[in-house]
Amino acid sequence: MTWMSAVEIAEKVRSGSLRAMDVTEQTIAEIAARNPLLNAFTLVTAERARREAARVDRLREEGEDPGCLAGVPFAVKNLFDIKGEVTLAGSKINRDLPPAQQDAILIQRLTAAGAILVGALNMGEYAYDFTGENLHYGASRNPHDPQRMSGGSSGGSGAAVAGGLVPIALGSDTNGSIRVPASLCGIFGFKPTYGRLSRAGTFPFCSSLDHVGPLARSAKDLALAYDVMQGHDDVDPGLSPRPVEPTGSLSAELDPSLRIATLGGYFAKQGTAASQQALQRVAEVLKITQELELPEVAEARAAAYVITNAESSALHLPNLRQRAADYDPDVRDRMLAGALLPAVAYLQAQRVRARFQRQVAEIFRRFDVLLAPATPMTAPAIGQKTMALDGEEMLVRPHLGLYTQPFSFIGLPVVTVPVQLPDSLPIGVQIIAAPWQEAKALHVARVLEARGFRNAIPQS
Amino acid sequence: MTWMSAVEIAEKVRSGSLRAMDVTEQTIAEIAARNPLLNAFTLVTAERARREAARVDRLREEGEDPGCLAGVPFAVKNLFDIKGEVTLAGSKINRDLPPAQQDAILIQRLTAAGAILVGALNMGEYAYDFTGENLHYGASRNPHDPQRMSGGSSGGSGAAVAGGLVPIALGSDTNGSIRVPASLCGIFGFKPTYGRLSRAGTFPFCSSLDHVGPLARSAKDLALAYDVMQGHDDVDPGLSPRPVEPTGSLSAELDPSLRIATLGGYFAKQGTAASQQALQRVAEVLKITQELELPEVAEARAAAYVITNAESSALHLPNLRQRAADYDPDVRDRMLAGALLPAVAYLQAQRVRARFQRQVAEIFRRFDVLLAPATPMTAPAIGQKTMALDGEEMLVRPHLGLYTQPFSFIGLPVVTVPVQLPDSLPIGVQIIAAPWQEAKALHVARVLEARGFRNAIPQS
Repeated sequence: MTWMSAVEIAEKVRSGSLRAMDVTEQTIAEIAARNPLLNAFTLVTAERARREAARVDRLREEGEDPGCLAGVPFAVKNLFDIKGEVTLAGSKINRDLPPAQQDAILIQRLTAAGAILVGALNMGEYAYDFTGENLHYGASRNPHDPQRMSGGSSGGSGAAVAGGLVPIALGSDTNGSIRVPASLCGIFGFKPTYGRLSRAGTFPFCSSLDHVGPLARSAKDLALAYDVMQGHDDVDPGLSPRPVEPTGSLSAELDPSLRIATLGGYFAKQGTAASQQALQRVAEVLKITQELELPEVAEARAAAYVITNAESSALHLPNLRQRAADYDPDVRDRMLAGALLPAVAYLQAQRVRARFQRQVAEIFRRFDVLLAPATPMTAPAIGQKTMALDGEEMLVRPHLGLYTQPFSFIGLPVVTVPVQLPDSLPIGVQIIAAPWQEAKALHVARVLEARGFRNAIPQS
Repeated sequence: MTWMSAVEIAEKVRSGSLRAMDVTEQTIAEIAARNPLLNAFTLVTAERARREAARVDRLREEGEDPGCLAGVPFAVKNLFDIKGEVTLAGSKINRDLPPAQQDAILIQRLTAAGAILVGALNMGEYAYDFTGENLHYGASRNPHDPQRMSGGSSGGSGAAVAGGLVPIALGSDTNGSIRVPASLCGIFGFKPTYGRLSRAGTFPFCSSLDHVGPLARSAKDLALAYDVMQGHDDVDPGLSPRPVEPTGSLSAELDPSLRIATLGGYFAKQGTAASQQALQRVAEVLKITQELELPEVAEARAAAYVITNAESSALHLPNLRQRAADYDPDVRDRMLAGALLPAVAYLQAQRVRARFQRQVAEIFRRFDVLLAPATPMTAPAIGQKTMALDGEEMLVRPHLGLYTQPFSFIGLPVVTVPVQLPDSLPIGVQIIAAPWQEAKALHVARVLEARGFRNAIPQS
């Protein structure tokens, strides 16, 4: 039952052929049985989940519509506030914070649509991570091979969804933290346009780069959750005042008017063969032959690093001064480096960002959708620090974000689609659209899903 | 004739009782006669002015409307691009730039409304100034006393308008550079909301703080020029997409619904008696008795310094490396200090800014207009470095911006109104409104103008 899609569960619960309480109990039981291996959950909110399931079933019995996500279990990266719980953000330091006084706004919206929160998910410390490892809470494990990384920083989100514990999880993505675990775990991940979904009630990492979004085993589930989560609030200063733009029903037949190209150059370099094979598979199915290059991508990624370092260090400066020993030493070192960056380097990086944004906007006058690999490689082994690529020894952690960083840097909406190559772990392909054109990326993801691109894990 | 208001000139030219060419010739003659003392102009565009005057007169003769600023001479701070001229921005280094290929957008709009550009105006080097002094081009001089500062950095704009050389000048204001010379020169100055007027074709100082706006001898002239200058363009990334909101005809009778208060606390300290007397005069005339204090103003000003330093240094870094000797040593020292600021200090300053903005927004739920002195003192002597205030020795240059910096920091619209105290040089009072409420500040300025607040210089 926990392998059912959100669309399916909601349909059955709304029609009365399935009780939300049964879905919830089964989900709690599955988490109890299989999470010890996956280490995806850091908190299971069983009591709350039962209470909400009872409410959904009661509404249904009373003849009211319990909502378009009725009975759908979901879980959230543990940087989302859950009322009454401490928001860990993967850290030891945050354990000393008071419990959250209310749910994050996206949890409120999903709950109002009938979805059932079942827990909080493991993540890299303060989201400064691409591996899914965590010094304090242990690594979340890849359901395709538990000795391998889930990808990070939304590693628990990737593992919980790919492992069939929940159909939908929320994550956050600053440089790739939704797309990297989606790629390594073989599921769909969705980072909407910067400013589209509210971050109210989430623990920040880098304000000018932080996005939130869903991970799921189906493009339709992504769209369903996304439509419910859109909308204004007064808390998140980065939120756009744009109205809700529902993505509606996604056609599985490719819209022939879409101008699609694959990205070469930077996105064809420094990756394993698998990343290029995955891109080619997608291009073949979509019958895309046009390839193009974006200008100054390496500069954009370098500038994304500078901004990430500076903004995260500014946020953490008080704790770096007072509780340095309580950070993962690797995270601490990155933050200390950021604390020493000159302001002029930060401002220069913002100028690079504005220029890159303008240049890519020009490209989107000629194209609707761009395709690129999501990660340069399939899931490395947990603990692996380096890997050989083209005869060079690369650091695994930063290299995992090679292909994702340039797009979050300028806030573009991206859906990652899982590709299952023969005799390989899964790997993702990014479907990238112009700002606010989420619907196009979701549509292409849906087309690919209908052509067989999906999570290929053996269901236990 | 050069002492006429823009409203008057345009009326006469449109009605045919005055020829634009006569106004232009008279203006050019007055500049030739009196600019050697004031040092307000760095360039007189006589040929262009005659060409434009001829066009305006021809339109009029052909029965067409030459525009609402028909025949009105104006001049611009020399950081505005003038087609075919080098944009100096008060510097030596910029002399090596190529001539501008087109006029700044605000010059284009004024010209399209029939106004006649007669030249470029002296300013502090790269606008990093409150005195109106300039190492390379000499100090612009205060028409009320040529041994005294015009105030800066739009010093030439203040001197040219107060000295009766043009009815309208454009300036820029990053921390007070329109309001300080308006105060010291005894004229009206107007800094609209951040993002209201396009900076396209101007030489920048600090992107997140730079504003442009007019100076004039009358509130009605400010409004006339402002209405013509509003509107969208695709160049200035800070420009708001708001529609044009004309201020229309300004009533000279105070709108009784306006909730007005004077600002005490920070704005009653560290100033000379003149600044408080000027504020009291305005409050008496408007019958305002309510006084309030803004929170954290000193912190806001400190943060404005940090952002100014960092953003200007980032802009100038290549020249600081290659042409350090060509800067005014005082400006260079400030920029070098900014180049050493850590990014985390810059980001902390931006957080202070966001908080201050929120706190002041709360105040504007209860009030429509706030009143504060524009400068802590009347015009100091040219070359004066320090002054004694409350027994403390203050540095003159930075202290001139004490009362203006907090408002530009959060982008509020401000009109400064000149106050002529007995046996005193003039001094200004700031009329401050909520974001996008320019019309309210202009209306109050118009009321005060009708009650006798205006430039009291003996007309030569």
